[in-house]
Amino acid sequence: MTATVRLEKDLIGTKEVPKEAYYGIQTLRAVENFPITGIPPHKEMIKALAAVKKAAALANMEVGVLKKQIGQAIADASDELLADRLHDQFIVDSIQGGAGTSMNMNVNEVIANRAIELLGGEKGNYLVCSPNTHVNMAQSTNDVFPTAIRIASMNLAKGAIEELDKLRIALLEKAKEFDQVIKMGRTHLQDAVPIRMGQEFAAYARVIGRDVERVTRSLDNLREVNMGATAVGTGLNADPRYIVKVTEHLRQITGLDLKRAEDLVDATQNTDAYTEVSGALKICAVNLSKICNDIRLMGSGPRTGLSELNLPPRQPGSSIMPGKVNPVMAEVVNQVAFQIIGNDHTISLASEAGQLELNVMEPVLVFNLLQSLSILQNAVRVFRERLIEGLTANVERCRLAVEQSVGIVTAINPHVGYETASVVAKEAIQTGRSVREICIERGILTPEELDVILNPYEMTSPGIAGSKLLFGE
Amino acid sequence: MTATVRLEKDLIGTKEVPKEAYYGIQTLRAVENFPITGIPPHKEMIKALAAVKKAAALANMEVGVLKKQIGQAIADASDELLADRLHDQFIVDSIQGGAGTSMNMNVNEVIANRAIELLGGEKGNYLVCSPNTHVNMAQSTNDVFPTAIRIASMNLAKGAIEELDKLRIALLEKAKEFDQVIKMGRTHLQDAVPIRMGQEFAAYARVIGRDVERVTRSLDNLREVNMGATAVGTGLNADPRYIVKVTEHLRQITGLDLKRAEDLVDATQNTDAYTEVSGALKICAVNLSKICNDIRLMGSGPRTGLSELNLPPRQPGSSIMPGKVNPVMAEVVNQVAFQIIGNDHTISLASEAGQLELNVMEPVLVFNLLQSLSILQNAVRVFRERLIEGLTANVERCRLAVEQSVGIVTAINPHVGYETASVVAKEAIQTGRSVREICIERGILTPEELDVILNPYEMTSPGIAGSKLLFGE
Amino acid sequence: MTATVRLEKDLIGTKEVPKEAYYGIQTLRAVENFPITGIPPHKEMIKALAAVKKAAALANMEVGVLKKQIGQAIADASDELLADRLHDQFIVDSIQGGAGTSMNMNVNEVIANRAIELLGGEKGNYLVCSPNTHVNMAQSTNDVFPTAIRIASMNLAKGAIEELDKLRIALLEKAKEFDQVIKMGRTHLQDAVPIRMGQEFAAYARVIGRDVERVTRSLDNLREVNMGATAVGTGLNADPRYIVKVTEHLRQITGLDLKRAEDLVDATQNTDAYTEVSGALKICAVNLSKICNDIRLMGSGPRTGLSELNLPPRQPGSSIMPGKVNPVMAEVVNQVAFQIIGNDHTISLASEAGQLELNVMEPVLVFNLLQSLSILQNAVRVFRERLIEGLTANVERCRLAVEQSVGIVTAINPHVGYETASVVAKEAIQTGRSVREICIERGILTPEELDVILNPYEMTSPGIAGSKLLFGE
Amino acid sequence: MTATVRLEKDLIGTKEVPKEAYYGIQTLRAVENFPITGIPPHKEMIKALAAVKKAAALANMEVGVLKKQIGQAIADASDELLADRLHDQFIVDSIQGGAGTSMNMNVNEVIANRAIELLGGEKGNYLVCSPNTHVNMAQSTNDVFPTAIRIASMNLAKGAIEELDKLRIALLEKAKEFDQVIKMGRTHLQDAVPIRMGQEFAAYARVIGRDVERVTRSLDNLREVNMGATAVGTGLNADPRYIVKVTEHLRQITGLDLKRAEDLVDATQNTDAYTEVSGALKICAVNLSKICNDIRLMGSGPRTGLSELNLPPRQPGSSIMPGKVNPVMAEVVNQVAFQIIGNDHTISLASEAGQLELNVMEPVLVFNLLQSLSILQNAVRVFRERLIEGLTANVERCRLAVEQSVGIVTAINPHVGYETASVVAKEAIQTGRSVREICIERGILTPEELDVILNPYEMTSPGIAGSKLLFGE
Repeated sequence: MTATVRLEKDLIGTKEVPKEAYYGIQTLRAVENFPITGIPPHKEMIKALAAVKKAAALANMEVGVLKKQIGQAIADASDELLADRLHDQFIVDSIQGGAGTSMNMNVNEVIANRAIELLGGEKGNYLVCSPNTHVNMAQSTNDVFPTAIRIASMNLAKGAIEELDKLRIALLEKAKEFDQVIKMGRTHLQDAVPIRMGQEFAAYARVIGRDVERVTRSLDNLREVNMGATAVGTGLNADPRYIVKVTEHLRQITGLDLKRAEDLVDATQNTDAYTEVSGALKICAVNLSKICNDIRLMGSGPRTGLSELNLPPRQPGSSIMPGKVNPVMAEVVNQVAFQIIGNDHTISLASEAGQLELNVMEPVLVFNLLQSLSILQNAVRVFRERLIEGLTANVERCRLAVEQSVGIVTAINPHVGYETASVVAKEAIQTGRSVREICIERGILTPEELDVILNPYEMTSPGIAGSKLLFGE
Repeated sequence: MTATVRLEKDLIGTKEVPKEAYYGIQTLRAVENFPITGIPPHKEMIKALAAVKKAAALANMEVGVLKKQIGQAIADASDELLADRLHDQFIVDSIQGGAGTSMNMNVNEVIANRAIELLGGEKGNYLVCSPNTHVNMAQSTNDVFPTAIRIASMNLAKGAIEELDKLRIALLEKAKEFDQVIKMGRTHLQDAVPIRMGQEFAAYARVIGRDVERVTRSLDNLREVNMGATAVGTGLNADPRYIVKVTEHLRQITGLDLKRAEDLVDATQNTDAYTEVSGALKICAVNLSKICNDIRLMGSGPRTGLSELNLPPRQPGSSIMPGKVNPVMAEVVNQVAFQIIGNDHTISLASEAGQLELNVMEPVLVFNLLQSLSILQNAVRVFRERLIEGLTANVERCRLAVEQSVGIVTAINPHVGYETASVVAKEAIQTGRSVREICIERGILTPEELDVILNPYEMTSPGIAGSKLLFGE
Repeated sequence: MTATVRLEKDLIGTKEVPKEAYYGIQTLRAVENFPITGIPPHKEMIKALAAVKKAAALANMEVGVLKKQIGQAIADASDELLADRLHDQFIVDSIQGGAGTSMNMNVNEVIANRAIELLGGEKGNYLVCSPNTHVNMAQSTNDVFPTAIRIASMNLAKGAIEELDKLRIALLEKAKEFDQVIKMGRTHLQDAVPIRMGQEFAAYARVIGRDVERVTRSLDNLREVNMGATAVGTGLNADPRYIVKVTEHLRQITGLDLKRAEDLVDATQNTDAYTEVSGALKICAVNLSKICNDIRLMGSGPRTGLSELNLPPRQPGSSIMPGKVNPVMAEVVNQVAFQIIGNDHTISLASEAGQLELNVMEPVLVFNLLQSLSILQNAVRVFRERLIEGLTANVERCRLAVEQSVGIVTAINPHVGYETASVVAKEAIQTGRSVREICIERGILTPEELDVILNPYEMTSPGIAGSKLLFGE
Repeated sequence: MTATVRLEKDLIGTKEVPKEAYYGIQTLRAVENFPITGIPPHKEMIKALAAVKKAAALANMEVGVLKKQIGQAIADASDELLADRLHDQFIVDSIQGGAGTSMNMNVNEVIANRAIELLGGEKGNYLVCSPNTHVNMAQSTNDVFPTAIRIASMNLAKGAIEELDKLRIALLEKAKEFDQVIKMGRTHLQDAVPIRMGQEFAAYARVIGRDVERVTRSLDNLREVNMGATAVGTGLNADPRYIVKVTEHLRQITGLDLKRAEDLVDATQNTDAYTEVSGALKICAVNLSKICNDIRLMGSGPRTGLSELNLPPRQPGSSIMPGKVNPVMAEVVNQVAFQIIGNDHTISLASEAGQLELNVMEPVLVFNLLQSLSILQNAVRVFRERLIEGLTANVERCRLAVEQSVGIVTAINPHVGYETASVVAKEAIQTGRSVREICIERGILTPEELDVILNPYEMTSPGIAGSKLLFGE
C-alpha cells in the first residue's frame, strides 16, 4: 500500500499534506484557519504573484545569491502559473488574516514543489528548493503582496478602461443617431423645455469619457512597487543591487510601466493607491447607475410609461405576464454599480485600519478591488453589446409630447413677455389645450410667427428662438 | 477702568476668561483646540447634561458628600438650563477630541458659575462651587456623556416616532381615499397588471408602520445608563449608594424609563446602543426615499409623465419656465434620507473606533445621531403636512391607462390559455389596439365575458378574474 | 452520430441547449446576459427555491389545478435539490438583471427536466412538465424570489446566531478565568485606573449577547412570506385556497415559523425586512471589529507592546523574521467585519432602488445578505475555536504595570484630597517613581494604609478604596 | 401706526414679508417648506452666488438686454454680499427641495431689494428691480446653482490644500528631527525589525503629499461652469454673446481659472465633478485617520503603553484622574475623518439620484461637500499647530525596546543561517534574555561582530547589516 500523504513541518508542528499536492503545510494551515468565503484568490492575483516570484528569482540569480539551476526552475514554474496552469492549487480563501502571508506562502509552496519536480526531485523535499529560502528569497509578504496587488489591479483595469471607452463610443454613436429626435426635457421629472435625445446621449458619452480619464489617472500611483522593502520598508537583508534589478525584471515580465517606490517605508505602510482606484471606480459606478436609471425611465411603458426608448429584448420578462420584456441589461448594471459602491466602502474601512508599518487588512481590500474591476468590465461590455447598441427611439411619441407640452411656452417669453406667457401657460394647463392653439385664438402670435418661434430644433440650441422676428437678421 | 476679564487656571496654565462668561478656562481651551464645524452642541444634549448634573447633585446630597447649600445651587442652575436658559454659554464645537470632556466641562463650568451667583459669589470663585469637585462630583465624562447621549436621543426619538406615526396614519387615509382608483401596476417600470392606488398607499403605510416599530424597539437598549461607572466602569470612588440614587433621580427628572446598566464596564466601553438607533433610522430613511421616488414618479408630468398623482404646489418651481411646479417636498425628504444614511456611516465608523475601556469618538457620533433624529422629525412632518395630505389622484388618466394597457391580457390566461393570450398580447403591442377589441374581433371572448373578466377592480384582488365563467358560482 | 444538443425556444427565439443539461433556454439566456461575478447562486438559495416549488406543487395539487402525477414529480425533483443534488445545474450568475427571474427560471427548468425524467420523458419535452405552466404554476418571480430570500436568510441566520452565542459563552468563560487578573484600564489609550481583565471579557460577552438578541429579533419580519402575491401583490390568477395552502406547506417543508404576509402588495414592494437583518449584522460586525482591535492591542508585543494577552499561534507569521507569530485569527474577523459593513451599504443602495410595485435589485441584495450571513458564521466559529478559547493572560506583566502606574493615584483622592494627589501624580510622572513610594517618603500615607487603599482588586469595584480608613466599618 | 410688513405675491398667492427684510416671498415659502437642519447656506456659497449674479448682470448689460442703471445696482448689491455684508438675510435651510431654487431666489430677492434701495426705491417694489426679470436674467437655477457650487468648492479647497501642504512640511520637519531615533518597527502590532522614527514620519509626509496632489487634481473638472445652460443645458433664451461674456466676467470676479463647459447639457445633468472632489477628500480622511491612530498608539502610556512619542498637552484630560492628558488633537482629526467619509457617502447617494436633465439633490450634496472642505481645513490646521509641531520622541525608551527585542535576530540570518537564528530567537523569547547576550554566551558571534551586525541604524537601511564581515569591503 502506497502513502497518499507526505509529512511537512513548520514552526507550529507537523501536518499531513496530500502527496500529489503542490501546495504545502502553510497553505493547509491557512485553509484550516480561514474557511471564510469559499472563494479562492483572483486568477489575476495568482499570476501577479507568479510574476513577482519570477522577477525575484532572476534578480537573485544575477546578484549571485541564488543558484542558477534553482533560480531557473523557479522561473519556469512561475511561467506555468503565468500560463494559467496549476491554478487549482490555490486553495486559500480570498479573505484571510496575516496580511497576505498565506497567499504568498501558497504561491511559494506551489512554485517550490513544481520547481522540485522540474529539478527531478520529489514534492515536499524542500532541500532541493525551499518555499522560504529560495522562492521567497530577499522578499517579505509585505513587499510581495502589495506589489502583486498593484500588478493585478493594473492588468484588470486595462480591460475595464477599454470597455468603458467602447461604451463611450457607442453612446456617441447613439448621440449622432438620435440627434434629430426632439423630446421634452425634464427637470424634477417635470416637463421642462425641449431637448434632443442626441444631446442627452452626448452628455452620457462625456461623463463616461471623464470616467475613462479618472480611472486611467487613478492607476498612476499604482505604478510604484515596493519590492525590496522586505519586512517594514527599510530593506533589511535585501541587497541594494537586487532591489534595482527585481523591479526592472518585473517591468519586463509584466509589460507594465512599473517603477520602484521612492520611499519604501511609505509604499509598505500605505494603501491609498488602491483606495484611489476604488474611488475612481465608485464615481464611475454612480454615473453608470444614473444613466441606467434614465434609460429604464425613458424605456418605461410600453403603454403607460414614457416610452421614448425601445430596449432590445434579451429574455422573457415574466412567467405570468405574456409578452412582458424588462430592461434587464440596465438593471444588472445598476446592481453592479451598487456592488462597486459597497466594495469601495469595505476598501476604505480596510485602508483606514492600517497600523504603523503595515496594513494587515490587504486581503479583503484586494478581494474587493479586483472584484470591482472585473464586474465593471463584464457589466459594461454586456451593457453596450446587449443594450446600448440596440436602442431605438420612439421618434413620433417624443415629437407628440413636445407638441402637447406646456413647457414650450418658455420660448414665447422674449416675444410677448413673461406675464402674457404665464396667462397662456395657465390656460393650457387648465384646459388641456395646446400653447399654439391658445396663442392663435387669442391673437397673441400668428401661425407663421409660431412656426418660427416654436420650431423645436431651434429651441434646443442656445439663443432666443425666433430672434429674427425680434431683431431682424 | 474695570477689568473685563478674570483669570482662571488649570493643569496647563492660566487664561483670561471674559468676566461675564459663565463658561470657564476649560471651555476656552476647547474652543481653541476645536474650531471645527462652528456648530454648538445640540440643545437637547445641553439639557440632558443638565439633567445628569442635577441628578448627581441630589444623589450626592442625599449620600451626604455634598453640602446641601451647594447641591441646591447646582440643582437650581441645572434647572435653568433645562428651561432653555444660558444655552448661549455653550460654545464648544460639536466635533471635539476628548470623548466629550469639553462638553462636560462646559456644562460643569456654566453650572458652577451660575451656582456661585445664586450663592452670592462672583463668577470664577470656584471655592464657592467648583466645576470639578462639586458639579462633577462622583462623575467622569465617561459616565456623564454616554448617559446624556442616551437621554437626548430618547427625547428626540420620541418626536421622530410621533411624526412617523402621523405619516403612517396620513398614508392610510390616502389609501382609503384612493381605494377605488384603478391604475396600472408596474414592475421593472414596465406595465404589469392593474392595481388600486389605495393598495399602493396602504403598502406605504405598512412599511412606515414597521419603521415606527423598529425605531421604537431600537430605543430599548438606550435605557441602560452607566452613571456610577466613573472612569472605566469599575465605579472607583463612587459611593454604591450614590450609584443607585443618581439613576433614580435621573428617571424622575427626565420622566424617561431609565435603568442602571447591569454591567457598567460594558456600558462605558460599548456604543452599540447608539449604532442600533442609527441603524433603525437608516432603514426608515431608505423606505422614505423609496416612497418619495414613487411619488415623484407618479406625479411626473403634467403632460409628458405618468401624471397619476397631483402634488400640492408649494412654491414656484422655476424662474424661467412659467407655471412650473416641482415636487419639492418629496425632494427634500430624499435628501434628508441621504443625510441620515451618510450619518449612519459616520456613526458606524465612530463606533468601530472604540478602544479598550472607552470610545473617545462619541462626540462625532452623537453629533450625527442627534442630527439624524432632528431632521427626520422635521422632514417627516412637512412631508405629511405639505405633501401627503394634499395629494389627489388623476382618476381618469389612471383608468384610461389600464384600459389601453396590454398587461390586462394576463387575466384572460385562465380562460383561453397562455398560448392564445400571447397571440392577443403580441397583436396588441404591434398594432397599438386594445386587448378587448382584439378579443372581440377574433371571437375569442364575447363583450359580456370581457366585461366580467377585465373588470379592473376584480383584477386587483386575489383569485381568477371572472372565475364564475369557468366554474359557475 | 448522435446529437449533443437539443433545441428549445422562447419568446425571443430558439437556442441549442446541451442535451444532458437539466437547465433550459432561459437559463442559457441569463448566462449570456449576465457574465458578471462568476459566482453561482448560494446553495441555501437553491434549496429555498426548491422548497417553494415543492410547496406550490403540493398546494396546486390539492386545489385541483395541477395533475397529481405531474405535481408529485415536481415535488420529488424538488426534494433532490433539497438533498443537495443537481446543484451544478445552477449556472446563472449571482448578480443578474430581472429581479431574480433568471434564478427562478433556472430552478423551474431544472425541476421540470428532472420531473420529466422521473415521468419517463426526455429532457426538453415540456409537454410532459413545463417550467412555466407546471413548475411555476400560480407563481411569479415576484413572490417566489422574495419568499426564497426569506427562507435562505432564516436558515443561514440560525447558524450565525448559534456561533455568536457560542462566542458569547466562550468570552464569559474567559471572563471567569481572567477574573483575578488585575491590569491597567485605559481610556484614550492612556493609563487610567485598574480594571480586571475578566471585567473586560465580561463586557465583550455582554455586547455579543446583545448582538445575538438583535440578529434574532431582526428575523421576525422575515417570517412574512408573500406567496400568492403573483405579479404585483394583488394575487391576480392565484386561487385564494392555494394562497393559504402554499404557505402552510412551506412551513412544513422548511420547519420555519413562516406566515402569510398580511398585505401582499407591501410584502412584494418592500425589502426592509432584509435591510433590517443586514443592519443587525452590521452592528455585530462593528462590535466584533472593536473586540478584535482590543485583542490585537492587548496581544501586541511580545517585547515592545502591551503584551497582556498571549494568542495561540496558528501559523508562522513571517518568512523573513524567525519566530514571529501574528494575530491572524483576529485579523480575519476584522476583515470579515469590513466586508459585512460594505455589504450592508450595497444592500441599502439596492433596497432604496425599489420602484413602485417591485424591487428589481433583489439579486445583488440577496447575494450580499447571504454572503454576510455565511462569512459571519464561518469567521465567528474559527475566531472562537482558534483564538478566544486558547487565550492566556500575562498575569505578572499586568500586575507590574498596575504597580508602576500613576493612575492609581486616583484612589488616594478621597483620603488626601485632589490637590495633594495631584502633587504626588506630578512627581511620579516626572521622576518615574511609584505613587506608593512617594506617598510613604513624604509621609502622606503609611505603608499599611497604602496596602489597603491601593489594593488593586478593591480598586476595580464600585466604592471608595479603603473607605474603612475614612468612615470605620 | 406704521406697517411692519409688506405684501408680496407669487404664483401660489400672497404673503406678508417683514418690511425691513431684504429677502422676499419666495425665501419665506422656502423657510416654511424646509425647516430641516436650522443651518443656513455656507457663507462661501452665498458669496459664490453673488459672484454669479454680478457676472450675469455685467454680461447682460454688455449684450444690451439689461439697463445700465439697474445692472449697476445689481452689481453693487452683489459686491456687498461679496464683502460679507447682508449674510443674515440668508435664512433658507441648507437642505431644501427644488435643486437650489430657494437658495437662488433668496439671493435674487436680497440683491433685488438692495438694488432697489440703491436706486432710491422701497424694498418690495420689484418694478424697479425684479428678482426674476433682472437679477436672474438669462439664468436658471440649473446653471446658477451648479456654477456657484463649483466656485465655492474651489475657494474652500484652496484653503484645505494649503493646510494639507503645511502639514506635509511639518511632518517632514519631524522626519528630520526624528531621523536618528531608532525604534522597533511593528507589523500586525507585533515586534518586527528596527526602523527610524524619522522614516515613519517621512512616510506620513509622502502620503499627505499624495493627498495634496489628489485633492488639487480633483479640482480640474470643477473649472467647467455651465452658465448659459439655462433650464436643461440647451441654452434656450440665452443670448450666445451673453454665454461667452458671463463666464469671462466670472473669471475676473472670482480670480478662478474657470471655463465654459464644452457641453452644457452634460454640465447641467451630471454631478461627477463634485463627487470627484469628495472622493479625494475621503481618501485624505482615511490617510489622516490612519496617521492619527498611529500617533495615538505611539503616544500611548505614559507608563503602560508604547510611550514612544510625547504629545503636547492641550487640556486637562480627566476630571477624576489627576495628571491625565489625552491625545485630543488626534482624536478630533479622527472624528473629522469619519465625518468626511460619511459625507462622501451622502454625496454619492445624492449624485446617483440625478434624473434626466438635472440632479435635484444638489443642495444636500453641496451642504456636505462644503462642510467636508471646511472641517478638513480647520482640523488639519489645529492638528499641525497643536500636535505635530509639538511632538517629541522618547529616544531612550525607543532605544531600549530595540535592544530588548527579539526581532533584531533577523539581522544575523545572513551571518549564521536561518536555522541558528531561529534557535537564538526561541531561547530569547522563552527566557526573556537578549539576542546579543545569547549569541555571545553560545559563541555564535563575538561582541565585536555583534556591534557591527546589530548596529541599529544600519539595520534600518537597505542591505545586509554587517555585510563587510561577510564580503569584506
